[in-house]
Amino acid sequence: MVIAQSGGPSMVINASLFGAVKAAASASASACIGKILGARHGIAGILKDDYIDLRKVSGEKFKAIAQTPSSALGSCRLKPSPEDCREIFRRFKKLDVGYFYYIGGNDSADAARIVAEEAAKEGYPLVCWHIPKTIDNDLRSCDHTPGFGSAARFVASAVRGDDLDNRALGGVKIDIIMGRDAGFLTAASALARVRPDDGPHLVYLPEVPFSEEKFVRDIKAAMKKYGRCVCAVSEGIRGRDGVPIGAKLGSGEKDSHGNVQMSGTGALGDALASLVKAKAGIKRVRADTFGYLQRSFPGIASEVDRKEAVKAGETAVKASLASARKGVLTGTVGIGRAKGAKYAAVFEPRPITDAAKYTRSVPKEFIARNGCDVTDAFIRYAKPLVGELPRCETF
Amino acid sequence: MVIAQSGGPSMVINASLFGAVKAAASASASACIGKILGARHGIAGILKDDYIDLRKVSGEKFKAIAQTPSSALGSCRLKPSPEDCREIFRRFKKLDVGYFYYIGGNDSADAARIVAEEAAKEGYPLVCWHIPKTIDNDLRSCDHTPGFGSAARFVASAVRGDDLDNRALGGVKIDIIMGRDAGFLTAASALARVRPDDGPHLVYLPEVPFSEEKFVRDIKAAMKKYGRCVCAVSEGIRGRDGVPIGAKLGSGEKDSHGNVQMSGTGALGDALASLVKAKAGIKRVRADTFGYLQRSFPGIASEVDRKEAVKAGETAVKASLASARKGVLTGTVGIGRAKGAKYAAVFEPRPITDAAKYTRSVPKEFIARNGCDVTDAFIRYAKPLVGELPRCETF
Repeated sequence: MVIAQSGGPSMVINASLFGAVKAAASASASACIGKILGARHGIAGILKDDYIDLRKVSGEKFKAIAQTPSSALGSCRLKPSPEDCREIFRRFKKLDVGYFYYIGGNDSADAARIVAEEAAKEGYPLVCWHIPKTIDNDLRSCDHTPGFGSAARFVASAVRGDDLDNRALGGVKIDIIMGRDAGFLTAASALARVRPDDGPHLVYLPEVPFSEEKFVRDIKAAMKKYGRCVCAVSEGIRGRDGVPIGAKLGSGEKDSHGNVQMSGTGALGDALASLVKAKAGIKRVRADTFGYLQRSFPGIASEVDRKEAVKAGETAVKASLASARKGVLTGTVGIGRAKGAKYAAVFEPRPITDAAKYTRSVPKEFIARNGCDVTDAFIRYAKPLVGELPRCETF
Repeated sequence: MVIAQSGGPSMVINASLFGAVKAAASASASACIGKILGARHGIAGILKDDYIDLRKVSGEKFKAIAQTPSSALGSCRLKPSPEDCREIFRRFKKLDVGYFYYIGGNDSADAARIVAEEAAKEGYPLVCWHIPKTIDNDLRSCDHTPGFGSAARFVASAVRGDDLDNRALGGVKIDIIMGRDAGFLTAASALARVRPDDGPHLVYLPEVPFSEEKFVRDIKAAMKKYGRCVCAVSEGIRGRDGVPIGAKLGSGEKDSHGNVQMSGTGALGDALASLVKAKAGIKRVRADTFGYLQRSFPGIASEVDRKEAVKAGETAVKASLASARKGVLTGTVGIGRAKGAKYAAVFEPRPITDAAKYTRSVPKEFIARNGCDVTDAFIRYAKPLVGELPRCETF
């Protein structure tokens, strides 16, 4: 068995690795899982036989890794070509690999789908599954995705603290939050609110066309109402032309899946701050770009998220063994939500194409009619995933 | 008694407020402390009689406020003019104010010094004390300052997580860290390291003249050694001309103490990332500016820092009452470190001029000879202030 991690890291992607390896290690003898190899840096590592023997990692150490942010095996952003796949199978055959698990988001699911399809073409009976992970929460196969709850917890906590900071010194604060196409993480900033005048006072998602004029108008109105203003803005906001504003300002760098780089630069925040200073005539305007801390900050992961990440890994291995017995070699783990008042997640096998390539956006019922806030339905949706935030009290 | 908060907030400035108010509320009857008023937004609130009656705040609520980041009374950045002082005394006399405490950094200490001197000139017997606070750790009157340990804990935790993120995807990561003139907070990033190849691999303080050529050379060497590179860079780095590089790129905005705005913009990080891409020929270069989260993130304050912040507030009130009996009306709280193997802080009254206006820098013995790292002496100095970080484990 080979397992690997791909795409952007999260705070709980190692928990999924842990869950999958635990399930594989305790699989019945009929599954014939011998060595459990972790490929370093995803498919890139497979293409040079760069593996860690995961059965040799002590339970104590693996448990600590499961609590650690980032992808402990290393990651990559590589879309495998048919030639890559042939090279993968050549190497897999040498190592007698029968099972392959790929933990990642929609691009990683698409990479696994390509590997599965090429294996089928070649007649190589490879069990090839995707395990869901993404802080963006944009997989179509999941009610919510492991990694989102913890990143959302960082964002909501950060905005709660930042709102208190803005109370102290006033003016406009703009916080740029990750999420290339989907605004779930930016929407989660609304979980920071406790009192009626708490920020974020304005929330801008990529799902709503962004207008500079409306933005300035909204801020002026919030300043009038609250005497200060905290805005949560998605890095992926785009104008009516559909082109992300951050991409216009950025380096134009793309990965092999065609995604434009947006994180790792403060350009969008700075541009919006300049706009507000110039057009709204407000002196104190600050912008922070939360950046990679949203997915990597240690010690603050959501417990619900971490447990579900373990379960997603376990489910992938168990479900793949069960469906392989029925002749189905590929799939992903869908995550649903049980009906009823008490929150519970439901894990079920789904076709890998449900997770691959295409993403989902924040649905209309989660976006407020004014276009710059979320609805109560979103708060009800997101709260159980994030958990209770640190209590903050003020006079 | 009037108490107020001033300058940049911190994670524990409310703990000092709590400590001072607790000490004042339990002061002996001979001190004649009646009402305990918290001025909103520092001197700005005093100039319009904007107060909260702090005796009326419940103990439970005040304890929760003591655990909450940011300045719960609100803050300001105002250097009082002689006219402001006369207006303050006119209002203080009406309210029969005998005690005034100002929690803040060197500029706030200077504001308190001005108020004390003007009061003496006017013959107004005002007990006027400064209570130390600054995340920058640059007060000359303190071995270390309340607020620093918690901000340093945020920085070290963030870099620990960020270093794991960089391990996963490679390339160069530049983290811009607060500290206008003093590099203590940037230096604290080195506490992130556990393994020999852990980042930050390079640390740039404002105390060492910054050279773009050396920066690019250092990064190339680190890439060769580690195959990746995490850099911690102070927002206050300056060239041989002494002009901060961030200030050249920024808005040029200044407060009334003459400080140029540096935080709240990603310009420095972006400029350095562009430089590395262009000059070192490295494709994946990312920059994050940690921004205001360093002083406001809830739930992660250093316990040692919080306890010392309470103690600083208590000490100010107790020491001020004791010295007032001897006719000395003004002062600040100096914080020293007990000799011996076990860490302990020592609190003592000191002249307010020791904290006011001028700051201190990171001393030479804390800066590595290569100019881009800290020494073991710094680690020994900073570690007890920050406490144990969340364990992070990797393969």
